[in-house]
Amino acid sequence: MARLVSLVEDAHPSLREVMAALAPHSGRAHVVGLTGPPGVGKSTTTSALIAAYRARDRRVGVLAVDPTSPFSGGALLGDRIRMSEHAADPGVYIRSMASRGHLGGLSWAAPQAVRVLDAAGCDVVLLETVGVGQSEVEVAGTADTTVVLVAPGMGDGVQAAKAGILEVADVLAVNKADRDGADRTVRDLRHMVSMAERPAGHWQPRVVRTVATTASGIDDLLTAVDDHREALGAEGLQARRTRRAAREVEGLALDVLRARVEHTGGREGLQALAADVAAGRTDPYAAADRLVADLG
Amino acid sequence: MARLVSLVEDAHPSLREVMAALAPHSGRAHVVGLTGPPGVGKSTTTSALIAAYRARDRRVGVLAVDPTSPFSGGALLGDRIRMSEHAADPGVYIRSMASRGHLGGLSWAAPQAVRVLDAAGCDVVLLETVGVGQSEVEVAGTADTTVVLVAPGMGDGVQAAKAGILEVADVLAVNKADRDGADRTVRDLRHMVSMAERPAGHWQPRVVRTVATTASGIDDLLTAVDDHREALGAEGLQARRTRRAAREVEGLALDVLRARVEHTGGREGLQALAADVAAGRTDPYAAADRLVADLG
Repeated sequence: MARLVSLVEDAHPSLREVMAALAPHSGRAHVVGLTGPPGVGKSTTTSALIAAYRARDRRVGVLAVDPTSPFSGGALLGDRIRMSEHAADPGVYIRSMASRGHLGGLSWAAPQAVRVLDAAGCDVVLLETVGVGQSEVEVAGTADTTVVLVAPGMGDGVQAAKAGILEVADVLAVNKADRDGADRTVRDLRHMVSMAERPAGHWQPRVVRTVATTASGIDDLLTAVDDHREALGAEGLQARRTRRAAREVEGLALDVLRARVEHTGGREGLQALAADVAAGRTDPYAAADRLVADLG
Repeated sequence: MARLVSLVEDAHPSLREVMAALAPHSGRAHVVGLTGPPGVGKSTTTSALIAAYRARDRRVGVLAVDPTSPFSGGALLGDRIRMSEHAADPGVYIRSMASRGHLGGLSWAAPQAVRVLDAAGCDVVLLETVGVGQSEVEVAGTADTTVVLVAPGMGDGVQAAKAGILEVADVLAVNKADRDGADRTVRDLRHMVSMAERPAGHWQPRVVRTVATTASGIDDLLTAVDDHREALGAEGLQARRTRRAAREVEGLALDVLRARVEHTGGREGLQALAADVAAGRTDPYAAADRLVADLG
């Protein structure tokens, strides 16, 4: 499993064969995305969720995806250490994964790493994104079930809701719910959830309170996650997984095209065009058009 | 100026004409990138740098680029408020810019917004990136001069250096240099800078100490930035700007290709391919190949 995830990280040429071989063996695991701002307690919540899943006798794979922030090395290491209480459990597999190389890499790397853990027999794959960027939310948003963590007193409940987080969240966990302001954050989020328009019969995002450090509310969180999976049904699940596959296929296609753009050589190559743009001899749009035309 | 930057944010169709018209009028401003982890004091440092530039009678444009983190809305607003002491100065223009839409947008949006401020007569354009991702470092790294801020006691000096930050930094500012551990961070960074291999005669990144809240060391920082600009010379500057233009042209070309990928319709369209991948009927690489082939 570890070696296959490393192949994904390295964008290894043999991935094509590996993914073709794994395809028929995947689709069994419940893929749960977890995201939220730094300091909200993602790792502690993940660790508590692992324990709750294990108490229900389910095998858990955890993928912590880090879009190669040059500044997050330390935090990521700390995250892994905090989860080490599960290190000796053979029913738990924890792996952090950096998306080296291209920005676009994350879009296909996360689904492929999920496929590895899924095919290896995990009942649940927790996809935790480290960081706060758009790409992390997109990754978490392509899970079967997406959990967004917020904390009281960070101003994040309302901010997150305003910024479209409600659209990707199937379950909202207000963590550190023993702190001042928790009641208000829960109330605000519930209000916003109830106001959002959605077709009749569609899942209404559940708002739960957790204190991950004491595992308080973690069973409620897991129940909400399972309820969402059930509410999705076969058709809803298929729609989610098609969305995830679309992201993966698009990401791979763009990588192919990006490689072509970078390797388009000769007089009309990227460097020559860029030098013309830098010197004001041509404009960037005309240069981009010429580059795309040269790909054909 | 504000309206043109908004056109860039919105990826407005008229940008093609605007950029063609601005091209001959750009290339005069010194583009200075600023980046560093959250809490290091980027906005305070930016504000102090503005004051120092104004004392030297230079017109300053500030672009704070935020790659649309759904969680950073609050912080960004705070950043702007902290810089409002310069709001009444006609020689200062401050603008925050979100890169809406595609991940790839930042690669072309930042250079285009820089071109607007440059053509409008700014002597210096400070390009501040909010956030800690790879894309922010890349944006700051395509400036004429790149300043990386680190703080003592965050463990970031060494972490950042290890993660390749030294490669983009022309000047390293250890901010909050009145704190414990500052001496050690400065010493570590100077040691690492001196150990890095570089061709003879090449600029050796300068490490300066600052306390932005009291403007202590800010003149040293500005001097280091100016020295770097001078050391670059005409040829070095041209190389930097070609690199920035290459990023811009590549970003625009990829946006054209991405739009084609998304709009490739019919039976073989992305959705149909994704459904096949989700159901395990085909593998993602074969699907991506078919998608790319259909673009032709």
